[in-house]
Amino acid sequence: MDFVYGPGKNHLFVPGPVNIPEPVIRAMNRNNEDYRSPAIPALTKTLLEDVKKIFKTTSGTPFLIPTTGTGAWESALTNTLSPGDRIVSFLIGQFSLLWIDQQQRLNFRVDVIESEWGRGADLDALASKLEADRSHTIKAVCIVHNETATGVTNDLAAVRKLLDGYRHPALVLVDGVSSICAIDFRMDEWGVDVALTGSQKALSMPTGMGIVCASPKAMEAAKTAKSVRVFFDWNDYLKFYKLGTFWPYTPSIQLLYGLRTALDLLFEEGLDNVIARHSRLGKATRLAVEAWGLKNCTQREDWFSDTVTAVVVPPYINSADVVKRAWTRYNLSLGLGLNKVAGKVFRIGHLGNLNEAFHFNPCRLSGLRLNTVGTWD
Amino acid sequence: MDFVYGPGKNHLFVPGPVNIPEPVIRAMNRNNEDYRSPAIPALTKTLLEDVKKIFKTTSGTPFLIPTTGTGAWESALTNTLSPGDRIVSFLIGQFSLLWIDQQQRLNFRVDVIESEWGRGADLDALASKLEADRSHTIKAVCIVHNETATGVTNDLAAVRKLLDGYRHPALVLVDGVSSICAIDFRMDEWGVDVALTGSQKALSMPTGMGIVCASPKAMEAAKTAKSVRVFFDWNDYLKFYKLGTFWPYTPSIQLLYGLRTALDLLFEEGLDNVIARHSRLGKATRLAVEAWGLKNCTQREDWFSDTVTAVVVPPYINSADVVKRAWTRYNLSLGLGLNKVAGKVFRIGHLGNLNEAFHFNPCRLSGLRLNTVGTWD
Amino acid sequence: MDFVYGPGKNHLFVPGPVNIPEPVIRAMNRNNEDYRSPAIPALTKTLLEDVKKIFKTTSGTPFLIPTTGTGAWESALTNTLSPGDRIVSFLIGQFSLLWIDQQQRLNFRVDVIESEWGRGADLDALASKLEADRSHTIKAVCIVHNETATGVTNDLAAVRKLLDGYRHPALVLVDGVSSICAIDFRMDEWGVDVALTGSQKALSMPTGMGIVCASPKAMEAAKTAKSVRVFFDWNDYLKFYKLGTFWPYTPSIQLLYGLRTALDLLFEEGLDNVIARHSRLGKATRLAVEAWGLKNCTQREDWFSDTVTAVVVPPYINSADVVKRAWTRYNLSLGLGLNKVAGKVFRIGHLGNLNEAFHFNPCRLSGLRLNTVGTWD
Amino acid sequence: MDFVYGPGKNHLFVPGPVNIPEPVIRAMNRNNEDYRSPAIPALTKTLLEDVKKIFKTTSGTPFLIPTTGTGAWESALTNTLSPGDRIVSFLIGQFSLLWIDQQQRLNFRVDVIESEWGRGADLDALASKLEADRSHTIKAVCIVHNETATGVTNDLAAVRKLLDGYRHPALVLVDGVSSICAIDFRMDEWGVDVALTGSQKALSMPTGMGIVCASPKAMEAAKTAKSVRVFFDWNDYLKFYKLGTFWPYTPSIQLLYGLRTALDLLFEEGLDNVIARHSRLGKATRLAVEAWGLKNCTQREDWFSDTVTAVVVPPYINSADVVKRAWTRYNLSLGLGLNKVAGKVFRIGHLGNLNEAFHFNPCRLSGLRLNTVGTWD
Repeated sequence: MDFVYGPGKNHLFVPGPVNIPEPVIRAMNRNNEDYRSPAIPALTKTLLEDVKKIFKTTSGTPFLIPTTGTGAWESALTNTLSPGDRIVSFLIGQFSLLWIDQQQRLNFRVDVIESEWGRGADLDALASKLEADRSHTIKAVCIVHNETATGVTNDLAAVRKLLDGYRHPALVLVDGVSSICAIDFRMDEWGVDVALTGSQKALSMPTGMGIVCASPKAMEAAKTAKSVRVFFDWNDYLKFYKLGTFWPYTPSIQLLYGLRTALDLLFEEGLDNVIARHSRLGKATRLAVEAWGLKNCTQREDWFSDTVTAVVVPPYINSADVVKRAWTRYNLSLGLGLNKVAGKVFRIGHLGNLNEAFHFNPCRLSGLRLNTVGTWD
Repeated sequence: MDFVYGPGKNHLFVPGPVNIPEPVIRAMNRNNEDYRSPAIPALTKTLLEDVKKIFKTTSGTPFLIPTTGTGAWESALTNTLSPGDRIVSFLIGQFSLLWIDQQQRLNFRVDVIESEWGRGADLDALASKLEADRSHTIKAVCIVHNETATGVTNDLAAVRKLLDGYRHPALVLVDGVSSICAIDFRMDEWGVDVALTGSQKALSMPTGMGIVCASPKAMEAAKTAKSVRVFFDWNDYLKFYKLGTFWPYTPSIQLLYGLRTALDLLFEEGLDNVIARHSRLGKATRLAVEAWGLKNCTQREDWFSDTVTAVVVPPYINSADVVKRAWTRYNLSLGLGLNKVAGKVFRIGHLGNLNEAFHFNPCRLSGLRLNTVGTWD
Repeated sequence: MDFVYGPGKNHLFVPGPVNIPEPVIRAMNRNNEDYRSPAIPALTKTLLEDVKKIFKTTSGTPFLIPTTGTGAWESALTNTLSPGDRIVSFLIGQFSLLWIDQQQRLNFRVDVIESEWGRGADLDALASKLEADRSHTIKAVCIVHNETATGVTNDLAAVRKLLDGYRHPALVLVDGVSSICAIDFRMDEWGVDVALTGSQKALSMPTGMGIVCASPKAMEAAKTAKSVRVFFDWNDYLKFYKLGTFWPYTPSIQLLYGLRTALDLLFEEGLDNVIARHSRLGKATRLAVEAWGLKNCTQREDWFSDTVTAVVVPPYINSADVVKRAWTRYNLSLGLGLNKVAGKVFRIGHLGNLNEAFHFNPCRLSGLRLNTVGTWD
Repeated sequence: MDFVYGPGKNHLFVPGPVNIPEPVIRAMNRNNEDYRSPAIPALTKTLLEDVKKIFKTTSGTPFLIPTTGTGAWESALTNTLSPGDRIVSFLIGQFSLLWIDQQQRLNFRVDVIESEWGRGADLDALASKLEADRSHTIKAVCIVHNETATGVTNDLAAVRKLLDGYRHPALVLVDGVSSICAIDFRMDEWGVDVALTGSQKALSMPTGMGIVCASPKAMEAAKTAKSVRVFFDWNDYLKFYKLGTFWPYTPSIQLLYGLRTALDLLFEEGLDNVIARHSRLGKATRLAVEAWGLKNCTQREDWFSDTVTAVVVPPYINSADVVKRAWTRYNLSLGLGLNKVAGKVFRIGHLGNLNEAFHFNPCRLSGLRLNTVGTWD
């Protein structure tokens, strides 16, 4: 194996999975329980109520699915759409690319609106498509709120404004995997129909829970959506919601208790304070990058992400070497550049339950300079 | 909430999720890690090698999917079959019923062979179907190895023998959720094409990992299977297997380390010893039931399950009351009767990392007698 | 090493250290903290207030000392007595023997009142001594509330009554290691001057905290006691109590949080309910012993202990073999016979956070019979 | 309470208790076990063998005592000396002061050699005393290897050289609490007779285990030492060492497993590498202090401590405000100035299982400047 024991804490500054706070680790340090006992439904009920708050919705229906973000995507699409449905989707980086790939493989007709990597969703292109679509053949607009590969945050309020402007009834499906609980997100206000995140992101838990929330309009769409689905079928959940036992199949007891604590921590700090903290740490990271004399991959300030910064390295350096060196020498995990920006950027995650002292670990490298062999002096 | 704090350990004797041994809880008591670091692929590689041993296969390809047993079912079906394919499936209890429901919703044509609950798969009916199927329209035989609802273990070697007798090429897909690692299972020897289990069963881990293993024949079938799949698509895994990074999406770091320890414990005890232990504890449970003067739901000795015993209560008793009383009074979790046997049976799980002293908790009630209000005297 | 991996949970039925409930294990699953931060004093304050409740005192002063029961003994003696002081001490088993040994090595003049092992403290002998001691040369009466080696509980109210009857001012020092939080104990009502227990007993925590409580009279005695002491000196604690920082040296952060949870669990169940539960489980154990046809080492019913039962084996059997067999074969830990009763008794602990189902593990052996080679059939 | 929930990890940079590495936390995440079973003695035997390596001794006898550093001091003194014995002791800071206080209260005659705080032990004064002591009335020299209050490391080899030069037979008792496993220490080579440390220091465990090691000469002295001792008496340990059961009273099972893992981590990294790492991080801290324009409390380079740096603040600032601000604002724990240097210094611990990225947290404040109200700009 090409890794050896290193002393000290691993510093995890990838944009997910993120550092788990001790209280969540503690809450999950437990044996299994019978999920058909009275205790687990009682716990689940509080979770379903409270999880709506992180989406800022009162009318949405949440689902806690034993899956990853990829599964949450599939759940959002298959429950609301039918094969052959036309959707508009923005390609701005690796994660939007992967979602589009999934959309195509699930047999939707996808109008891909591509931007240069480092730029946000091209809303002008969306406007043109909406304007042209008098007959409402577009059934959904799919958008990644925060593209983790390039550190780009899209403007969801603007998407809603466009749809309203054209009185277009398309559903709005949002990947909030690296935004929800960290970047301002307002499901009800912005008319988002399906929003989703994963437990290992801003909730600062282990991987394994896809959290999906559906608007009343999405729930209505689910009644006629013809996409084949079983594991991801919301109807199976709804059946057990009615019974008050909540689970169509076995949930992870540990993740349920972990979510309870993760939500408690969020609410204790205050969701708005959490978002402000991400904003503060995001800005600090960008200032550090500037101080290093390096460029942010994100091309315009209004797209800057408060959860991840993709840093462009000079052309004579392979960014993968930076990541490798950080890992072997400092026990510090940074994110690789992916696909089109492989070798060109490394990524600093500033996502989750962090504080100033914790956060500045990667930034403390600011005194150092990248040398020509791609390592720090 | 209708539950209160009770002192002492909860005794979990449902057939899953089962008790987690301390070393596994310990191994999972950890922070997240970057799954793209060199450490996680190195760990994953050992897991994929070792997990084949629990299936008793050398030629199979394993998949560790962040899902439950229900998702593992879907993975087995969608990767090997196409919509409209004819399959034969045995209905002998609640879990085989649910799998058949999934098969039908995934648009396969399912020949259901039903048995009375408490009886095993009707292999004579299978024989007739195979004999009649000269043109090999049957693409797969789906069978639950151990039906958890009724405590019935099916004879997989006999299924193989029948198929071989008729030189029938149908795939054999096996739900081994409550058998693998606890009841003798031999993937290669019995010509099983897809076998699957879940982490929260005999592996004695938390829920969240579906473990699926595919024979070379199943892998071949996957190349042409037309069922729509993305999250569950084996091809995405194979792509990353080739890259040596193994994961198409984020795995649970905690479950990977948990699986490592669960496998270590299994191999330290010896898989055959583990199976012998389940056999011993299963027999002991059945003797206890006999001593109570109660009936086993399983109708014939050769179907007796070594991982769960469904106990029939007298007609004047509701078995749910027995379960409830055990929980409120003794902090002891038993399994309810499901569907057709609801109210009629309760179930004692004797599955996972148990020993004699641990196991006999539910059986120690043997000195007691069920009274007419469904509680123990 | 003469032990191997055994599957399933170890069943710990020694009278200490006892099984730790999951919530306490969870609470202790944490990193160190700075004990000079504002958080630890705030936590300590609640502990010192609440721990008085387990002694049933409002006027006592508690000390949470990083030590074991042996250290707590030393703390009780050296803070209240001077070398050469005359004390009366009851020898009724191994633990009272060890305490007397300590008393003698600390240079007190000890009047030992010995009883046959299996019998309680000889209070008639105490009465004679008190009657004869007109000049009050006896400075303290030392008594083990519950002798763990023989399963004997002494009558502390009777001791108080005798002292009051003779208007004797001797201090009463009580070892409550295996009684406090499990057997009725009333510090104020019974005029106990120093009472002590250890974290690993009825509080169901790990070893490492000696909990000592001193009456106002004992605190007064501490001002003039000339025994040499530093680590165990109450004055060092009092100095920091006044400062509000509480700790003269570094406490175990983990044990502080563990104690917080242990107390919470006790109060949630209700201390009187906890005592009633021990009484119920103690009685049940004695009935099981009777059913086995074996004899209780304790010779009279009013001495029966509700936290441990010492079981006398037939003369042709070595009780150590019973303990060894339980451990190797059933992963079940029982207590050995100690000193005078070595080989003659084994001990079943029924102490701590137990319930009926948990507890009956050792008793489930009731269907078995001891055979002539000292093992169970 | 004057503290509130803060997000992110607490950064613990006091010189003890220090950060516990995850593997040690994991190892301790367990239930109690019977310490009289065969497993615990087998484990203990490996610990006693291996713990000698951290003292660099082959001839020493180690004791793992359930106590703190203060108790370990008492163990060292009372087992080797008799009341009235003359000892020489160096007062150079708060911890040497406390040890001297203990020595005096234990009734030894202490020649205190005082240095200005910030300076090391005055070895010239020792030389004079040794020279004058032809009749060998000095029974022991007591020295704190690393004074935690001022960040001063004493030269133990020089002490040995002096004693040898004068052929003086005095015992050498060393407090290695904040040095052993972090700063070069050689028990055998330097002729140290009793050395001691605590679990919560360089071993990076919770508090609760005092680790004491005695040379053959110290063991010989213990045979005639007349200090009263019971809990701390080495003889009780030796009795159980001979029996092979090792424990005179109940040890903390959790700390034993924790120590096993702590030693494994030390040996995996290599003790010399660990010491080199502390040297590197210590130097880096001092460079940071220099860069801040602040002064090191330690007055001479050869006394610089590699485990803690005491930083002198400007006279118009109260160092307690710096510590408080770090805690409330950054969730960062620094050490207060103690006693004579209270308000004048704050302390940065760089002790235990740290790495560069972890370590530089407090140092990242280097970009900031102390302002006149004692906080950072």
